[in-house]
Amino acid sequence: MSNKQIIYTTPPAPAIDPSLGTGTFRLNTLPIPKDVPTDKLLVRVHYLSLDPAMRQWLTAKRSYIAPVEQGAIMRGQSIAQVLAVGSGLSSKYSKGDWVVASSGWQEYAVVSAKEAEKITVPAGGRPTDAMSVLGMTGLTAYFGMVEIAQVKKGDTVVVSGAAGATGMVAGQIARIKGAKRVVGLAGTKDKCDFLVRELGFDSAINYKDADWRKQLKLATPEYIDVFFDNTGGDILDACLARAATNSRFAICGAISQYNAAKPQGPASFMSVISQRITMKGFIVFDHVKQFPAALKELGSWLAEGKLKRKEHIVPGGLEAAPQGLVDLYAGANTGKMMVEVAPVSEALAVKAKL
Amino acid sequence: MSNKQIIYTTPPAPAIDPSLGTGTFRLNTLPIPKDVPTDKLLVRVHYLSLDPAMRQWLTAKRSYIAPVEQGAIMRGQSIAQVLAVGSGLSSKYSKGDWVVASSGWQEYAVVSAKEAEKITVPAGGRPTDAMSVLGMTGLTAYFGMVEIAQVKKGDTVVVSGAAGATGMVAGQIARIKGAKRVVGLAGTKDKCDFLVRELGFDSAINYKDADWRKQLKLATPEYIDVFFDNTGGDILDACLARAATNSRFAICGAISQYNAAKPQGPASFMSVISQRITMKGFIVFDHVKQFPAALKELGSWLAEGKLKRKEHIVPGGLEAAPQGLVDLYAGANTGKMMVEVAPVSEALAVKAKL
Repeated sequence: MSNKQIIYTTPPAPAIDPSLGTGTFRLNTLPIPKDVPTDKLLVRVHYLSLDPAMRQWLTAKRSYIAPVEQGAIMRGQSIAQVLAVGSGLSSKYSKGDWVVASSGWQEYAVVSAKEAEKITVPAGGRPTDAMSVLGMTGLTAYFGMVEIAQVKKGDTVVVSGAAGATGMVAGQIARIKGAKRVVGLAGTKDKCDFLVRELGFDSAINYKDADWRKQLKLATPEYIDVFFDNTGGDILDACLARAATNSRFAICGAISQYNAAKPQGPASFMSVISQRITMKGFIVFDHVKQFPAALKELGSWLAEGKLKRKEHIVPGGLEAAPQGLVDLYAGANTGKMMVEVAPVSEALAVKAKL
Repeated sequence: MSNKQIIYTTPPAPAIDPSLGTGTFRLNTLPIPKDVPTDKLLVRVHYLSLDPAMRQWLTAKRSYIAPVEQGAIMRGQSIAQVLAVGSGLSSKYSKGDWVVASSGWQEYAVVSAKEAEKITVPAGGRPTDAMSVLGMTGLTAYFGMVEIAQVKKGDTVVVSGAAGATGMVAGQIARIKGAKRVVGLAGTKDKCDFLVRELGFDSAINYKDADWRKQLKLATPEYIDVFFDNTGGDILDACLARAATNSRFAICGAISQYNAAKPQGPASFMSVISQRITMKGFIVFDHVKQFPAALKELGSWLAEGKLKRKEHIVPGGLEAAPQGLVDLYAGANTGKMMVEVAPVSEALAVKAKL
């Protein structure tokens, strides 16, 4: 048995080239590690997370996290199952446990306890939730909407990238917290229909429509109190021009700009002054201490049916990850995008309730 | 005796054209009002304030204040002397009092009590201070640096437009509040020398130098904790790229953009996310309730010599105002710019200690 790995080789210029070997990444095949050090675990990756932040990890500039080095396994988290436990960790982990692993893009990984968080599935939850609505994307939505934007009753809330893993949770949290209007921006009619019909957004705007700015104006008759931004670019610009006085802009991501050779600043920036806007960028990892409390609240909303999940599973095994990432930037997904590296049917039966 | 007035006639396209009659403004001459209504004052304007915000008042778009209407007297504040008091106001004002008047651009004005704030000159102060270091520009610097940017001991602070009326006070407040480094950006070598030699800035950078970005980097070895922005544009962009984690950007003005047909958004905007920057726009009038406390503190710093003032007086009477405003946007001034509409020698002797 072998362990396939995807290695980061060539900086995107500026877009990711998904062709393995000639593009941004190459495939590497090694034997599966046999001996597990006493302080490590051997895990098998089942679902690999694809995240908008990944493009930034391939840019060698000052950021919240060091870039991935050329020649290293591509960084990423996964839902994985423990196959073998080093003797020093046997009190904490058992064979068959499901974990969120900092495995990187490979089929099998040897990880430390720090890199493998055991998944406790709450009532009504699923293990893959730990990578979406009860994982980093759900937590990002939570802290962005609750702590950074300080959403409150009566607010008009706009979310960009609203059909993405983070956006859809952010919009639902605004609804739960009593927002007067929740408006989503997404890139297809199907996504917009999903947001309104399935998730209870008041309206959703396809930003590829020619008249999307007019639609945004109509959907926000009292201007925008809270903007949760995942996209940057033109949408951020339009929301600045539509900001209410003393509005709060939680800047979570700028997916429209990650692959841009020359990023575009928001031309309507001067609204920040005239409308006294507070714009605040944030990173979910700054809120680690508050994770347990947030997960408890997210878990209870999920159990009560107030919060809905949606996953977009990419088939085809590990090799599908590069194209999946390119598709993520093209907006192919509705909900949390993950690559099925190994189906559940191949999981160890022990505790394998995925 | 006549009253000259400057009337706003033609929207700038996009720059202000100072030629009276054919440009942005025209001159109007009326008799000086003879009868003062019971609830009004007749004042004579001596010093007319020129402010970067004025260009924005000529743009008909949603802002913190309604635009000046075409055909109306140009809006502006002045240091003025009371010539006549309506009978209803005689308990509050006397002939000869000095006031900060919302007079507009004219030589004589009939104003209400709301539009005429009596000047109380603290020890060590001067009446014209009420339009600069103890007026709107000083208060703007105070609230921006203390409340919005929350400057604290040990911070590296950068101020753009640092030789302007607001910027020079902002930098000095940072110094007083214990900043580790105070760095100013200005547009001439003389201004930079003034900031370092006269006001105690640690360094000052001429943004017209070819290598100003490199100078900025060298002047901020621990990055920028607080940026007080008066200019926007390239300088904001460079400071975003140089921002420290959890830095605070007080967005006060964007003078580089006011005359731009197409405003330029900051291309380094994505630093907001990676460095978790808080950018906050503000307007001094939102802090009116705190004015007395702030003025007390500013006044004591001025009296103690910790805070220095600087005025730039434009000669030539009221007609010099349009060209003065153009010069303000070109950066001609060091310190508070005001037009001498009538010299102090012409003031009434009564209480006229200007």
